[in-house]
Amino acid sequence: MNQVPAPHAPPQRTLMGPGPSDVEDAVLQAMARPTLGHLDPLFLELMDEVAAMLRQVMGTENRLTLPMSGTGSAGMETVFANLLQPGDAALVGVNGVFGTRMAEVARRCGAEVVEVKKDWGQAFTPDDFVRAAAGRSFRVLALVHAETSTGVWQDVSGMREAADGCAALLALDTVTSVGGVEVALDAWGVDAAYSGTQKCLSCPPGLAPVTFSARAEKVMQQRTQPVQSWYLDLSLIARYWGGERAYHHTAPINMLYGLHEALRLTLLEGLPARWLRHARNGAALCTGLQALGLELPVAPELRLPQLTVVRIPEGVDDARVRAFLLNEFGLEIGGGLGPMAGNCWRIGLMGAASRRAKVELCLQALQAALADQGHPAA
Amino acid sequence: MNQVPAPHAPPQRTLMGPGPSDVEDAVLQAMARPTLGHLDPLFLELMDEVAAMLRQVMGTENRLTLPMSGTGSAGMETVFANLLQPGDAALVGVNGVFGTRMAEVARRCGAEVVEVKKDWGQAFTPDDFVRAAAGRSFRVLALVHAETSTGVWQDVSGMREAADGCAALLALDTVTSVGGVEVALDAWGVDAAYSGTQKCLSCPPGLAPVTFSARAEKVMQQRTQPVQSWYLDLSLIARYWGGERAYHHTAPINMLYGLHEALRLTLLEGLPARWLRHARNGAALCTGLQALGLELPVAPELRLPQLTVVRIPEGVDDARVRAFLLNEFGLEIGGGLGPMAGNCWRIGLMGAASRRAKVELCLQALQAALADQGHPAA
Repeated sequence: MNQVPAPHAPPQRTLMGPGPSDVEDAVLQAMARPTLGHLDPLFLELMDEVAAMLRQVMGTENRLTLPMSGTGSAGMETVFANLLQPGDAALVGVNGVFGTRMAEVARRCGAEVVEVKKDWGQAFTPDDFVRAAAGRSFRVLALVHAETSTGVWQDVSGMREAADGCAALLALDTVTSVGGVEVALDAWGVDAAYSGTQKCLSCPPGLAPVTFSARAEKVMQQRTQPVQSWYLDLSLIARYWGGERAYHHTAPINMLYGLHEALRLTLLEGLPARWLRHARNGAALCTGLQALGLELPVAPELRLPQLTVVRIPEGVDDARVRAFLLNEFGLEIGGGLGPMAGNCWRIGLMGAASRRAKVELCLQALQAALADQGHPAA
Repeated sequence: MNQVPAPHAPPQRTLMGPGPSDVEDAVLQAMARPTLGHLDPLFLELMDEVAAMLRQVMGTENRLTLPMSGTGSAGMETVFANLLQPGDAALVGVNGVFGTRMAEVARRCGAEVVEVKKDWGQAFTPDDFVRAAAGRSFRVLALVHAETSTGVWQDVSGMREAADGCAALLALDTVTSVGGVEVALDAWGVDAAYSGTQKCLSCPPGLAPVTFSARAEKVMQQRTQPVQSWYLDLSLIARYWGGERAYHHTAPINMLYGLHEALRLTLLEGLPARWLRHARNGAALCTGLQALGLELPVAPELRLPQLTVVRIPEGVDDARVRAFLLNEFGLEIGGGLGPMAGNCWRIGLMGAASRRAKVELCLQALQAALADQGHPAA
C-alpha cells in the first residue's frame, strides 16, 4: 500500500540564476554534522559565533543580530511585523518585485503604505523619498539595496538624511547584497535590515539574517500591541538568542551549521577581496554578453556585479534556451519577473558561483543555446 | 580585524529530549547533496514525492499538504493565520505549553479565543469542548494530539462531533505524534493539522508539514481579508506547491532533501511497525524508570510512548543531573516547562532514538547520575 520513492539523487548543477547559488562542499558537509539539541552548550556557542560573524558581513555592531528560522522573505516580514503597528505609516520604494513585496507585507501589518514608484531598472535618489514624504512623518522608510528582479544596485548614501527628514527608521533589503558588494549598515545609518543565505553567502536557503539598531529596538519596546506574528516576534526570539536562552521555537540546527561554515568561508576570503572578486567577474560577464550582441537594459553605473539582467533577443524562445542550458550544460540561469518575464534573463554570479571559469562556461553555453535557435550571436 | 572562529565540530550526542531527536546518517547525508534551484524540474519532482509521503504519514488524502518553510511553530501559525480572520472565534484546548501557544497565536490573528482549560498532565474529553462552547459557534476547535510539555496522548475520537456541534473546523497539533503513534487525520475528521520534522520523523528541525481538508480550503477561499502573514499565506504558497509552480519564496532545498529521506525511511519501516516499536520502547522505559523508584506523573493510559515525563526526586538537582548525563554519557534529556520546570524531566524516544539499547543507556545513565548525588535509586 505504501509507495516509497527512490532516494533523491540531485545532479551537480552550476547555479547562475538569482539564487540559490552554488554551495561550497564544506558548507554542505557542515550541514551533515550530527544534530545537537537547541539548548546544548556547544550549540549555544555556535549561535554566538554565527551572530558575531553576521555582524561582520552586515557591517554593524547591532546587539540584535541573528538569523530568523525561515527564508529571506521571513526576514522581510520580521522587519515590518516588529517595527509596524496598525495605524503606522510606511514609505516604501517600489522599483521591482521586492519593493512591491515590502509594500504588501507592510500593508498586511496594518500600516498605511505610501509607495515611492520608479520604473523597473531605475534607482532612487534620496530626493525621491523626500518629495514623496511631502512633509509627513513615517515610522519606516524602506528600500531595496540589491533588487533581485532587476539587477539594480541602489546607492544608500543620503537615505539616512531622507529618513531623518520624515522621522523614520531606515530599513534595507540586503538579501542579494550581503557578501557580494559592500554592506555597511552602521556607516549608512540603517536601523533594520534583513538578508538571505542562498545568494552571495552561498549557503542553501532556509535562514534569514536580520539586524536592528538600538533605535529600532527602542521602537519595538514601545509597542502598544503585540507583534501579530508569534513566530517572528523578536521580543520572544531575542530571549533565546540573548543571554537568557529561553525556549521559543526549536532552531533549525543543521541549517545553522551550514550558515556558520558559509560565514567562515566568507570571512576567511576577506570581505574586500570578496567584493572585488564579484566586481571583476560581473564586469567580465557584461563584456562577454555584449560581445555576443546581447543587450543589458540596466545602466552601467547601476549594475549589480552579482546579478546581470540580459534582454532576450527578438525571436529567441526563453524557455527553450533555459532548458537547453540546463540539459546540455547543467547550467541554471533565471527567467525574468513581472514586466521582465519572457523578455529578460537574470544571470547570477553569487558567492561560490562568481568564478571566471563560470563566466566563460555561461558565455559559451549561451552562445550554443542561441545558435541552436539559429540566432547569429557574436 | 576579522575574527573567524574554527569550524564547528559537534560531537555525536544521543538525543532523548523532547526534540530534536537522533537523526539517521542517511538523512544527514541527504542534506549534503548538491543544491538544486527551486524551480529545477528535478526539485519539483522531489516536492511532489515529499507531499505524497506526508499524506501517508499524516493519514490523509488532502490535496493541500506540504511542508512550510519554518519550524513546527510556523506550522501552528500557518493553521491559525489562514483559517482565522479578525472577529472569528476559536475554541482552544489548553493543558500544556502548546495549547497555551495555540491560544496566543489565535489571539494575535485577531480571533476571540475561548480557552478550554485542563490541568497539565490531563487529557480532554469531547464533552469538555461541548460544555465550553455553550451552544455558540466557532470557526475553529483546536487541540494538541501529543502534548510535548506533559507527555499526554490526547484521544481524538469524538472530537469531530464536538467540532460539528459548534460548526467549527477541527485543528490538531501533531508535532510530536506524526511517525511515533497513529495519526489518521481523515478517519478522525481533522480539517487542519501541522507537524514538525525533528520529533518522530527524525529529521533535523526546519520544516513544518501542514495539511488542510477541502472544507478548510473552502473557508480560506471565502476570506474577506488577506492572511496577515504574507510568508505563511497558503493562497500564495499553494501556487508554488501546486501545478502552477509560481514563485513565492525560495524553498529550503537541502532541508527538503533531508525530509524526503526521513519520510522514505519512515515508510520503508512501515507505519504500524514504527508505531509498535515506539510503543514497546516507551513501555520498557516506563518499567525501567519505575524500577529505579522514579515517579511518572501521567496516568498510564495517557502516556505517550515517545515522550515520558518523570518526576525529579526530592533533593536531586535538575541541572546537575542533566549536565552529568550530557558530559559523562553524551546523553540529552529535557527539562520541564511551565509548572513542570525544575520538578520534572522529559525523556524522548522519538524516531531513530526509539531503540531498546537507548532505553538501557538512559536507565543506566540516570542511575549513575542519581548515585552521583547520593540518591539511592533502585
